[in-house]
Amino acid sequence: MYRTHNNGELRASNINQEVTLSGWTQKIRNKGFMIWLDLRDRYGLTQLIFDEERSPKEVMQTAANLGREFVIQIKGTVIERESKNPAMPTGDIEILVKELIVLNESLTPPFTIEDDTDGGEDLRMKYRYLDIRRNPVRENLIFRHKVTMAVRNYLSAKDFVEIETPYLIKSTPEGARDFVVPSRMNAGQFYALPQSPQTFKQLLMVGGMDKYFQIVKCFRDEDLRADRQPEFTQIDCEMAFVEQEDILQTFEGLTRHLLKEINGVEVGEFPRMTYDEAMYRYGNDKPDIRFGMEFGYLNEVAQHKEFNVFNNAEVVIGIAIPGGNSYTRKEIDKLIDWVKRPQIGALGMVYCRCNDDGSYKSSVDKFYDQEDLARWSEVTGAKSGDLICVLSGDTEKVRAQMSALRMEVAERLGLRKADEFAPLWVVDFPLLEWDEDTERFHAMHHPFTSPKPGQMELLKTNPGDVKANAYDLVLNGNEIGGGSIRIHDKDIQSKMFDYLGFTEEEAKAQFGFLMDAFQYGAPPHGGIAFGLDRLVSILGGQETIRDFIAFPKNNAGRDVMIDAPAPIDKEQLVELNLKLDISEE
Amino acid sequence: MYRTHNNGELRASNINQEVTLSGWTQKIRNKGFMIWLDLRDRYGLTQLIFDEERSPKEVMQTAANLGREFVIQIKGTVIERESKNPAMPTGDIEILVKELIVLNESLTPPFTIEDDTDGGEDLRMKYRYLDIRRNPVRENLIFRHKVTMAVRNYLSAKDFVEIETPYLIKSTPEGARDFVVPSRMNAGQFYALPQSPQTFKQLLMVGGMDKYFQIVKCFRDEDLRADRQPEFTQIDCEMAFVEQEDILQTFEGLTRHLLKEINGVEVGEFPRMTYDEAMYRYGNDKPDIRFGMEFGYLNEVAQHKEFNVFNNAEVVIGIAIPGGNSYTRKEIDKLIDWVKRPQIGALGMVYCRCNDDGSYKSSVDKFYDQEDLARWSEVTGAKSGDLICVLSGDTEKVRAQMSALRMEVAERLGLRKADEFAPLWVVDFPLLEWDEDTERFHAMHHPFTSPKPGQMELLKTNPGDVKANAYDLVLNGNEIGGGSIRIHDKDIQSKMFDYLGFTEEEAKAQFGFLMDAFQYGAPPHGGIAFGLDRLVSILGGQETIRDFIAFPKNNAGRDVMIDAPAPIDKEQLVELNLKLDISEE
Repeated sequence: MYRTHNNGELRASNINQEVTLSGWTQKIRNKGFMIWLDLRDRYGLTQLIFDEERSPKEVMQTAANLGREFVIQIKGTVIERESKNPAMPTGDIEILVKELIVLNESLTPPFTIEDDTDGGEDLRMKYRYLDIRRNPVRENLIFRHKVTMAVRNYLSAKDFVEIETPYLIKSTPEGARDFVVPSRMNAGQFYALPQSPQTFKQLLMVGGMDKYFQIVKCFRDEDLRADRQPEFTQIDCEMAFVEQEDILQTFEGLTRHLLKEINGVEVGEFPRMTYDEAMYRYGNDKPDIRFGMEFGYLNEVAQHKEFNVFNNAEVVIGIAIPGGNSYTRKEIDKLIDWVKRPQIGALGMVYCRCNDDGSYKSSVDKFYDQEDLARWSEVTGAKSGDLICVLSGDTEKVRAQMSALRMEVAERLGLRKADEFAPLWVVDFPLLEWDEDTERFHAMHHPFTSPKPGQMELLKTNPGDVKANAYDLVLNGNEIGGGSIRIHDKDIQSKMFDYLGFTEEEAKAQFGFLMDAFQYGAPPHGGIAFGLDRLVSILGGQETIRDFIAFPKNNAGRDVMIDAPAPIDKEQLVELNLKLDISEE
Repeated sequence: MYRTHNNGELRASNINQEVTLSGWTQKIRNKGFMIWLDLRDRYGLTQLIFDEERSPKEVMQTAANLGREFVIQIKGTVIERESKNPAMPTGDIEILVKELIVLNESLTPPFTIEDDTDGGEDLRMKYRYLDIRRNPVRENLIFRHKVTMAVRNYLSAKDFVEIETPYLIKSTPEGARDFVVPSRMNAGQFYALPQSPQTFKQLLMVGGMDKYFQIVKCFRDEDLRADRQPEFTQIDCEMAFVEQEDILQTFEGLTRHLLKEINGVEVGEFPRMTYDEAMYRYGNDKPDIRFGMEFGYLNEVAQHKEFNVFNNAEVVIGIAIPGGNSYTRKEIDKLIDWVKRPQIGALGMVYCRCNDDGSYKSSVDKFYDQEDLARWSEVTGAKSGDLICVLSGDTEKVRAQMSALRMEVAERLGLRKADEFAPLWVVDFPLLEWDEDTERFHAMHHPFTSPKPGQMELLKTNPGDVKANAYDLVLNGNEIGGGSIRIHDKDIQSKMFDYLGFTEEEAKAQFGFLMDAFQYGAPPHGGIAFGLDRLVSILGGQETIRDFIAFPKNNAGRDVMIDAPAPIDKEQLVELNLKLDISEE
């Protein structure tokens, strides 16, 4: 037996016990006649003491030669520490070592195994197995496990059944790119890895399974953006015989349970907002409502003077930065530079200081008098001491720019508090969105999403106005889940495919099995999917999903630890009936 | 709201309540003035009654036109049934229907949605979503969910952490064939789907995670045999700072918990048997010990006469079929034909009847007298009324043949009882097995398995005799789990790779990251993996894993429902830098 206790376990009550411990050497202080060593494992640290007078000679010698991250096993007696460490759960005791076995040596690790390590991200990714020894990474992985257990137990208690759907499925050109898997046994044919189990969960509803969930890996071959992974995990859910309200209630319940169970935070009924309202008030379909700075539409109070920048704009939008009047001119100029960065793309920014004496001082005083500016302050809700920032132009662009500015300022002001949780349902999403490239409407959610009752007619006349039974759950400015009530009528589904530009053959080839299934008594159904990586990182008070994934890939989709992807043997290609087709340039 | 109750819920105590129910029409009896309909959902059946005198006219008309598997919603009053059905949980009541909405119609399903359906396997697979509506299939899927929840909660309570390992990894030619995934962003390179998370779980041990598990899909591109799936699910587990005994105790605990929690069966300490003993007594490394018929080695008592078939044989093995003396000559001939089938391959079978009067009658009476046969009966443990069956020849072949005969006879005699559970640890597996094709030894388990202490030396002289710290958990004649204590010393691991014929470059290219990791303080570790599909089917009292998978593939690796695999678009191939290479024949 390698250990009788773990390294986070021993207390004063264990004093005088003989124990066996194993772990890694964390810190060694060698005074010659006395050696102290912190022994580490997943559960904590225990201080070992090797003493010339009380430990055997050969034990002292071996101990003197131990290096960082050696794996050792010791036997010894639990004794009371002379100088107790109240910051350490095992700080009342130490182990007087009598036997010492080196289970494995270690090279000096390429970075320190400490909470604040000296290793950069690339190095830590290459040696991820050493990174995982560090408390923050280990705690994140354990945290993720706790969240998934809580999800599973909650849903299971509510009669949901976790059902595994297949990973080797069929490629569908709809949506993002599929990863494909050549079939050796069926020459020239390919499986695809699922982007989500969407069609399978709908088939389970046709199959009467009623309440389904699955915590499942999904795959998207996208050009990676920062903090996106080619493989990611979803909490995938579907229910039959439900309306939108049933789904919102059920998964509001789950989210509330997680906030309470995991974070100890009690949250009341979640507020709801339509997509249109969210875009209007925050310029964003996933607004962070932990803080204000809502949009003030200044058109009426800013387009009546000679300032043509505003007069020619579709919208003039202002927000009030709390306490922003304390910014120096230089700081404001920096903010203006920030909105003018190509990633944001504003042409300029107008501002107005709200002085403590009730007066205003704006960058456009030439055009606007105190009365005008007072009305700006009214519309944006600015108070004395605030700074009003104003952007103008085309609605869609200005909303996006102002939304970015709002988030940036909130971040700088520390308004995005990791331990404050503000969930929000955003409902009534548009059914379709215009795609500039193909110059046609595409399904915003996916082609199985049902339009709001009675809006099918609008498809012909005002397609962009059709609203869907689609909803997102937003937490602290992040979309953590999204879903919809599905179409369960095969005629409406055909019409939808037709509208989205699928020929009958294409629809049949790609979704024929679903259309077939809908002929045999499909119940009304709908669902939701949560991005687990994102959900866990937000509950964990962070926003980088990579920190909550054991073995993440980098931004180029590579696993730098195992060095994948990699070339494969020629024979493998031959067996798969494939040839590489790489032009030499 | 589509329903106030589900269809398995209403009882006499609900009488007089107004309820809303939804579901599928299961059975309709139309007497004209009165229509009875069984409404079905996942939870059960509820009888609806439509009555000319008490239901609205239009409801009667709509009800008269309902077909099988229509999806309907009704409102009505719970009333007491005149003729109660005690076999049905809702059998005390029925619903007098006042409102009826047809939510969806259905074509006549291609097979009946009944426990005993008229649909063949192929048809049911093509319409799996309808098959799932049948009680047996649905119950199997719910059963699987219960098992996985029990596994997760048990391991989680024992401090195990479920950690997701990646699906897009690196191809290794060792073992079975990998499925590969071409990388669009890295031309000419491929990911591979994991055959198991073996190396990742070992890296987690190096990372100090200590107690890991994961219920995870694994992939093997094998030529499929009956009841094998290209994707399958494993309960994958690994522990650090453990010896074999710790692992056996931990997972014996898990299995005992499952048998109790899921099957209500209390099982004591699991018996253990070495691989050599299992092969000796049962001719099989996964013996079904629910019944006897152990091998009797008859060499000493059958090789002393003129019968050269036995005299020239390496082994002469007999088993006693309980009550087998009741077999007619014709039945025995059939058994002989059975062992002579090419799949079994015996050249013949000698038998000996044990008569009730204590006398014997054998097919080789010419050579053996009553005293000889009495000794056969002693060695095989045969009693009056039994039939001794004897096979002879080369040890390995005869053991395999006799093992097959033993299982076949037990099956016919009903000794393989689905509700009886006999777990067994088989330990001390050989480290290596001889491969006829490559004419060299291969790792029997995998190249990370550690030899028994002190046996490394034997590798040079008697490689076939080296035993490993490897173990299988056998349940009712099926291997449900297998694992080993791993090598954690990089020098021993190098030696092992070298012995198994890996060049240094190959070992580095394929397992370099693991060898690297082992340089930084790898702890002693080991683990086990359970085949979840198999485990669930055995706990469920069945042996066909396909019945416990929602969307299984057929023996050609095809999903006949969605028709996958399938060709992909030319543009997809171009993006992946691939060309098909199919010879036209």
